[in-house]
Amino acid sequence: MKAFLRSFFFLLFIFPLNLLAQDPLPSWNEGATKQSIIDFVKAVTTEGSADFVPIPERIAIFDNDGTLWSEQPLYFQFLFAVDQVKVLAPKHPEWKTKEPFKSVLAGSMKGALAGGEKSLLAIMMATHAGMTTDVFNASVKEWIESAQHPKFKKLYTECVFQPMLEVLTYLRANGFKTFIVSGGDIDFMRVWAERVYGIPPEQIVGTKMKLKYQVVDGVPSLLRTPALSLLDDKEGKPVGIHEHIGRIPIAAFGNSDGDFQMLEYTTSASGKRLGLIVHHDDADREFAYDRQSKIGTLNKGLDEGPKRGWIIISMKNDWKKIFSFE
Amino acid sequence: MKAFLRSFFFLLFIFPLNLLAQDPLPSWNEGATKQSIIDFVKAVTTEGSADFVPIPERIAIFDNDGTLWSEQPLYFQFLFAVDQVKVLAPKHPEWKTKEPFKSVLAGSMKGALAGGEKSLLAIMMATHAGMTTDVFNASVKEWIESAQHPKFKKLYTECVFQPMLEVLTYLRANGFKTFIVSGGDIDFMRVWAERVYGIPPEQIVGTKMKLKYQVVDGVPSLLRTPALSLLDDKEGKPVGIHEHIGRIPIAAFGNSDGDFQMLEYTTSASGKRLGLIVHHDDADREFAYDRQSKIGTLNKGLDEGPKRGWIIISMKNDWKKIFSFE
Repeated sequence: MKAFLRSFFFLLFIFPLNLLAQDPLPSWNEGATKQSIIDFVKAVTTEGSADFVPIPERIAIFDNDGTLWSEQPLYFQFLFAVDQVKVLAPKHPEWKTKEPFKSVLAGSMKGALAGGEKSLLAIMMATHAGMTTDVFNASVKEWIESAQHPKFKKLYTECVFQPMLEVLTYLRANGFKTFIVSGGDIDFMRVWAERVYGIPPEQIVGTKMKLKYQVVDGVPSLLRTPALSLLDDKEGKPVGIHEHIGRIPIAAFGNSDGDFQMLEYTTSASGKRLGLIVHHDDADREFAYDRQSKIGTLNKGLDEGPKRGWIIISMKNDWKKIFSFE
Repeated sequence: MKAFLRSFFFLLFIFPLNLLAQDPLPSWNEGATKQSIIDFVKAVTTEGSADFVPIPERIAIFDNDGTLWSEQPLYFQFLFAVDQVKVLAPKHPEWKTKEPFKSVLAGSMKGALAGGEKSLLAIMMATHAGMTTDVFNASVKEWIESAQHPKFKKLYTECVFQPMLEVLTYLRANGFKTFIVSGGDIDFMRVWAERVYGIPPEQIVGTKMKLKYQVVDGVPSLLRTPALSLLDDKEGKPVGIHEHIGRIPIAAFGNSDGDFQMLEYTTSASGKRLGLIVHHDDADREFAYDRQSKIGTLNKGLDEGPKRGWIIISMKNDWKKIFSFE
């Protein structure tokens, strides 16, 4: 009987109070940054409020590299490309003597990138074009399920930011549709993003190769040709947003100057808007870089962002936890 | 008391039975075509069934012109372009003497199209490029809310097929996401498709102009440049599907040979698939045309479709009602 009474009181008093007090963003430290996200969501979801936004217009967009997962020491997709050169090498005997492939196969990233952008493009095209989408997707799947991050010694899909996963869940619980808008290859992300972020393929916007429809022996497929349909970075991001989403999002999360135009496009429109920039300032738990970094350069955004009302998220101060494996 | 008892019996026996017997497709005549749609939906939504498809993969695609609304005597978007030439003429004095504009302004469609594809392209580019997406959308909105169909004397958005609206609702009630995949301009459709079909902008795939992001006096906008990013017709449709949706739909509805590849791509994949072609064979209630028509040519689909298991919908025999205004 005592146990029953205890359960009864627990259910009556403790449980509901606990529910009411449930924190939607437990990995965020209390403070202005966390509060600004919660205040925004309350404003746009409160019926009768001047800032109320109907559910179909609750669109939030997220950059991927450096915003939802890490991007150091190199963009993970480039690390995939390097590994792919090794996988494909037996089919390309000429790579043994041809740069940048020769250096990649010898394990020298410095030599591989000596040729600058041209070398980078050669590596990307050799590993991202000339095959069907099915073959490409299978190679991404195999890699993402086995390759490990050099610093964290974890699968790349474990190097996602726990506080951002909470933001995705919190927004969706409040009627938002969440999209990725990334400079990364659209299909590279689609292979694992639904499982890791809960974002389905049709809500992923990224850099796209021109595709060619072909039917071989009665079997249709799409060939990834070595030409870009869209470079979804900088000025390309608002283009990708309009092409895929067709209306202006009300919230945007980025981390580098590659996200500047996406934040500008989102926050310049009328009505309540939210723009945020993840600042990588935690060398102990992740990496610290901004103005001088070649990967994820954040310079203009640090200066102009605050003037435009964008919130700078300090990973060091605002995030209690960065990765779930900590 | 008698009234109460009557209500009680009504609620207990009549109401539930009525609900169970409710016809999801009331504008469809009973028969094999209607049954094939219902059987497909039952098969993919019955848990434990060999054909069961989880909700995120329940993607259905619909061509627009000739499938969801009429396309005769000319594609409605082309009729918009013709009206737009008249609206824009004051800003283009040179059109008074320059074909195909001279003929359009004189009301001669025959003269306007005498130059074939080149004339058509000139009219489309003059009315669909060189302005921002906002300006273009506003011109579509004004037109679609006022212009009338020459035969039906109704707004174009009233010339939508009631049986197809029922299919859209029926599929969505069964966990499907419905997409348009059309040769029409993506933004032309987005202006009114959410209101008319319940399909939001992010679920519309269409022909796309290359966009250019620009910031004028601090205001961002997207310029529609006179170049195509994607011609979403024939071989372009599977490309548009992959770009925007990222997985193969399980059901596709089309009406012309422009939809052949989209039907082929959808129905060739493994697992239960549904392909349907709307055949315009009702000259009394709508229009009758197929193999010989320049608009909405249906030739290959009529021959090959049935061999591939695609269902040919006879508007005359399968549809009780074509338009809601009948």
